[in-house]
Amino acid sequence: MPVDRAVVEEIVREVVLKRLGRRPANSAPTLAVHASARHMHVSRADLDVLYGPGHELTVDRPLYQEGNFAAKETVTLIGPRSRVISNLRILGPLRKQSQIELAFTDAIGLGLDLPIRLSGDIAGTPGAFVMGPKGMVELKEGVIRAAIHVHMNPEEAAFYGVKQGDMMKLRIGGDAGVTFNRVLVRIDPTSRLNVHMDSDEANACGLHLAKEIELIK
Amino acid sequence: MPVDRAVVEEIVREVVLKRLGRRPANSAPTLAVHASARHMHVSRADLDVLYGPGHELTVDRPLYQEGNFAAKETVTLIGPRSRVISNLRILGPLRKQSQIELAFTDAIGLGLDLPIRLSGDIAGTPGAFVMGPKGMVELKEGVIRAAIHVHMNPEEAAFYGVKQGDMMKLRIGGDAGVTFNRVLVRIDPTSRLNVHMDSDEANACGLHLAKEIELIK
Repeated sequence: MPVDRAVVEEIVREVVLKRLGRRPANSAPTLAVHASARHMHVSRADLDVLYGPGHELTVDRPLYQEGNFAAKETVTLIGPRSRVISNLRILGPLRKQSQIELAFTDAIGLGLDLPIRLSGDIAGTPGAFVMGPKGMVELKEGVIRAAIHVHMNPEEAAFYGVKQGDMMKLRIGGDAGVTFNRVLVRIDPTSRLNVHMDSDEANACGLHLAKEIELIK
Repeated sequence: MPVDRAVVEEIVREVVLKRLGRRPANSAPTLAVHASARHMHVSRADLDVLYGPGHELTVDRPLYQEGNFAAKETVTLIGPRSRVISNLRILGPLRKQSQIELAFTDAIGLGLDLPIRLSGDIAGTPGAFVMGPKGMVELKEGVIRAAIHVHMNPEEAAFYGVKQGDMMKLRIGGDAGVTFNRVLVRIDPTSRLNVHMDSDEANACGLHLAKEIELIK
């Protein structure tokens, strides 16, 4: 499997579709659904080791959420059976804790048994070794499969009638026909309406073929 | 990615759970949900070329449906960009037409743009070159992503109140929480109640973690 290509393709794959709501189209916010390939979020301390003290991430491509970006920097992830994922992309900006988000398909290859967690909720999750050009970091924990979630601002939350931490459903039509029943709501004033799923979920529901996408309370 | 290991592991991964139905447990048939890894079904003529004239498939492991088996024989699939999948397992018995079933994750790696089709419905689908120890076959068509489906016998169909070709839903509980809305019903007197999904679908819904599975009309 051509790992780098898959990483790049998945990161850039975007499906932006108008929400097919029950209200008139002109009042429905535009819903973007993105598939996130495996990636790493990195702390200041860990980036110092991986890329050298004081190294700043370089923007390769801005992401849909304001201020977030795919960095040019990548790392190599070393799993428990000495199997590796190379060219694992770092997403910026820096975070308080390092965290690695993989799909289950990635985890099977590495020999890691991952829990499904919300980003940031990493207590008790598996760790891994991460190698950069300047050094190696041992993450004691922080490797997860990220739970599917939807970013929105307070106005969009009001439109859907949901609050922070609620679960919504995302129905994907077409030949695959999959409904995700536990899409967690994350509300922030700076957010744009945007579902994040991983590459397994995108492939299962045929996101690249989807003609009909509905976010439902 | 350790391709062979993934193939073997996915093929043998089985989740057999008691259907959590609305009727008393003693009247509900046992529902088996299996993840099929990528594989090939082969015709007599193609097996003659791949493994030599008159070659008979060797049973490696019986599958859940009576008479079906994972063969010891494997082939190498060569995609349009000269990328390959090696150790692609043949499933027996022989069929009238050769057919290769891949997950979208596999297809991205190969550079193939697959349609979602029911097994056997291959008109107009992509082809590929397939290499065996004795020769190479060009499939003009037949590479698909198999649509999720449920095998059942007429008594089980009566229990659910469904007929040949109907669509059912499969709800997978747990942290992932996915419902497959288009599970095609295939009825045969020799069948055992059994959903077949592919490895992307299994990884998206966290089948290996699922504690609650429901097949719904």
